[in-house]
Amino acid sequence: MTFETRERRAFVRITDDVQEAVDESGVQEGMVLVSAMHITAGVWVNDDEPGLQEDTLEWLDKIAPPSWKEPANDVARELSPDPGDFRHHRGGEDNGDAHWKNLLVHHQVVLPITEGRLDLGRWQAVFYTEFDGRRAKRLVIKVLGE
Amino acid sequence: MTFETRERRAFVRITDDVQEAVDESGVQEGMVLVSAMHITAGVWVNDDEPGLQEDTLEWLDKIAPPSWKEPANDVARELSPDPGDFRHHRGGEDNGDAHWKNLLVHHQVVLPITEGRLDLGRWQAVFYTEFDGRRAKRLVIKVLGE
Amino acid sequence: MTFETRERRAFVRITDDVQEAVDESGVQEGMVLVSAMHITAGVWVNDDEPGLQEDTLEWLDKIAPPSWKEPANDVARELSPDPGDFRHHRGGEDNGDAHWKNLLVHHQVVLPITEGRLDLGRWQAVFYTEFDGRRAKRLVIKVLGE
Repeated sequence: MTFETRERRAFVRITDDVQEAVDESGVQEGMVLVSAMHITAGVWVNDDEPGLQEDTLEWLDKIAPPSWKEPANDVARELSPDPGDFRHHRGGEDNGDAHWKNLLVHHQVVLPITEGRLDLGRWQAVFYTEFDGRRAKRLVIKVLGE
Repeated sequence: MTFETRERRAFVRITDDVQEAVDESGVQEGMVLVSAMHITAGVWVNDDEPGLQEDTLEWLDKIAPPSWKEPANDVARELSPDPGDFRHHRGGEDNGDAHWKNLLVHHQVVLPITEGRLDLGRWQAVFYTEFDGRRAKRLVIKVLGE
Repeated sequence: MTFETRERRAFVRITDDVQEAVDESGVQEGMVLVSAMHITAGVWVNDDEPGLQEDTLEWLDKIAPPSWKEPANDVARELSPDPGDFRHHRGGEDNGDAHWKNLLVHHQVVLPITEGRLDLGRWQAVFYTEFDGRRAKRLVIKVLGE
């Protein structure tokens, strides 16, 4: 499964795509691994509520502040290395913060399958979370079970 | 497996419940998925030490401050959106911070099974971590292997 | 698989060790669980770039500050409990921060296997991340599939 988001950062809902992979596998009882193949993206299971997603992106920017825009406040300024101090950026990169968001969100999730369906709670939706987009990205889905 | 914690936040030890599910499955070599069906709860594998749990809850409150009580200090105040600014709360919710604690702790864990036993280290215990309790919550356990 | 790092904190690349376990299992399609048996260590999939690792350790020290050295800045000082206030340290421990780094990084990861190979993206390498080393530590690897 591939993505190319128009925005640098984005939440892309993929619950139906994961269910499709489960359908194709024919597995009735088991688990499915959903794993981003990138070090600046994540997979998050949470509410499909745009307000929460905006809140969350803002909050992640405070904890893992991007160096490509002015930090939002004093805390962000202290938590972030100075852009010039970001060792990872000496090779010309500017996405250090996206590596940390990958760490916080985690790049993969394993979901339960019961009677052929993703066994999710009422409010659980699966999102691919992009923190350094605008280029082709890939996601692996592996189904295991009976 | 269901929970209804009396407190808003709680750590509930579930190692034995997971081992029971492994016993019932008869699996000797494999893995077990332990997954909260909620977006404001987590599953944490760590020390069964009440002091550490209190420390950790305090620390999580600093990083992902609740808006339903006065932030603990200046950092928490800067990291937290103003209660009124919390987009997610416009629909009447007050649990935005619990979504972030779910993100930090992660809602699921996969544990190894060796010779029919959870293959945990000496100090590893499994906890269901509740951040918005006092209502019925569910957890799925899936065992895979031979 | 065992480790005993000379330093208190370290990133140890283990991609090849995980691939070896996959080879030995003969599994062609499936998943592999890589799980630290410790509550002060993690497993991280990210770039094999020393600058990023130093940046990340510094950043983790700001969010989950050690009490065994002077906090790096005001934010770290506010996020950290006073060493004397760290309930977990009353029994003589000094590794409270390592438990939180274990929480942030996560102690385990599940990786996809396709055609007998770890199905990783170009920049994805697997690291054992040690936050309280200089003693024997263990890691479990479990392969499942066909």
